Amino acid sequence: MEIQIAVAKINKYASSESGDTSEVVERPNGGLSVVLADGQTSGKGAKIISSMVVHKVINLLSEGVRDGAAARAASDYLFTERNGKVSATLNILSADLQTGTLVITRNNPAPVFIASGEKIQCLDAESSAIGTSRNIRPAISEFQIEPRVTVVFYTDGIVDAGSRYGSSLDVCTLLESLLEDQNPSAQNIADALLSEAIHLDQGRPDDDMSVVVLRITGQESDQIRRMTVLLPVAPIYPFLRDEKYTSDH
Amino acid sequence: MEIQIAVAKINKYASSESGDTSEVVERPNGGLSVVLADGQTSGKGAKIISSMVVHKVINLLSEGVRDGAAARAASDYLFTERNGKVSATLNILSADLQTGTLVITRNNPAPVFIASGEKIQCLDAESSAIGTSRNIRPAISEFQIEPRVTVVFYTDGIVDAGSRYGSSLDVCTLLESLLEDQNPSAQNIADALLSEAIHLDQGRPDDDMSVVVLRITGQESDQIRRMTVLLPVAPIYPFLRDEKYTSDH
Repeated sequence: MEIQIAVAKINKYASSESGDTSEVVERPNGGLSVVLADGQTSGKGAKIISSMVVHKVINLLSEGVRDGAAARAASDYLFTERNGKVSATLNILSADLQTGTLVITRNNPAPVFIASGEKIQCLDAESSAIGTSRNIRPAISEFQIEPRVTVVFYTDGIVDAGSRYGSSLDVCTLLESLLEDQNPSAQNIADALLSEAIHLDQGRPDDDMSVVVLRITGQESDQIRRMTVLLPVAPIYPFLRDEKYTSDH
Repeated sequence: MEIQIAVAKINKYASSESGDTSEVVERPNGGLSVVLADGQTSGKGAKIISSMVVHKVINLLSEGVRDGAAARAASDYLFTERNGKVSATLNILSADLQTGTLVITRNNPAPVFIASGEKIQCLDAESSAIGTSRNIRPAISEFQIEPRVTVVFYTDGIVDAGSRYGSSLDVCTLLESLLEDQNPSAQNIADALLSEAIHLDQGRPDDDMSVVVLRITGQESDQIRRMTVLLPVAPIYPFLRDEKYTSDH
């Protein structure tokens, strides 16, 4: 069995910085967690908020704090730091090898989809963003880790894709058709969803967009863990220094 | 231009836990850092140490602390926490988009290879592990971010691969032959190095092994950031709970 986690992200059109932050972290008792936050508004300010929230959560998770407690802590922290004036959406998805479960933690009005084989379930119970009041509670769901399970979630750039042109993304139908294909990878699914959302915004994303997909495959594994990160960069004009031992760094 | 980072890891044969920890984190002013630590010995104890070191470093980097200062802080922290009795090797590799440079920070006797086109340079100046004394300084090198640059580093499981059978891995020659192929991806290179090391240990890794590869390609990018994590799991016997809103998490 193998657990695949894929993230695909694009910035709002003509924006150099995404207000979305996503990081993956190892769980101290086995497994992985992926954390996604979207700070209110866009650009630098939103990035600072989403980064602050994600790092608070991954620090706590890496210390063994459970997911729901980490989400509550992040909410209280943001509320305290910004006097309740700034909100952020937060999703945590953990593959917890100690309990053998996927734990889905939602502080985001956007739904989470979970497919088991071809059956797709939409987790859309009311859930609010963090940071704007005390006592914000996450919506938590737990599912067995088993082959052919797929989990998908995203930020509001995907929810609102196409809205300016009177269309919207039907994630459930698209996911259904993707899963009918021969065993798509998590990255295939994330790429397809993001690509369709960008298409609905006519190639110019109206907001930062992030998609996270987790997929469990039953295939034989070589017991090697792998992580790949691909970062597009605009041409930059760097300088060169040779090897040295300075106190600069 | 695109920056690719790949990590490939395997546990010591018949060991359920790796003493190596590697995480990738976004830099607050643009770019990525990948951090790799190997805790002294193997198994749970080593994992706690390497995880502690990596999380200390990524916390500091995410706050904007420069790489060398983060390495020194991790060394002092480990020295204080474990009374100087436990060591860990530490590598940090950053693609810093603010300065347009790759920053390579080494507290590890194992060398770091950097290839620019087909020319391969070996960074093997003396460098000690962290945690065993005060005033441990990292070896820091800085290079321009430009297409066709490849950086490779690893833990001592790769250095010692085959030693029990009187052989060893010639990373430089293997890397040279890999780079002669048509534009291998960072993941291709990491997989090939790890696979050869496992082969030298006759399929039973004598220690935890981790390889990190960064590669810069000049190819046109679609401006989408991507991250994929693949985690092999042994069959486990989980339990199932439906969606609910409890105070369990």
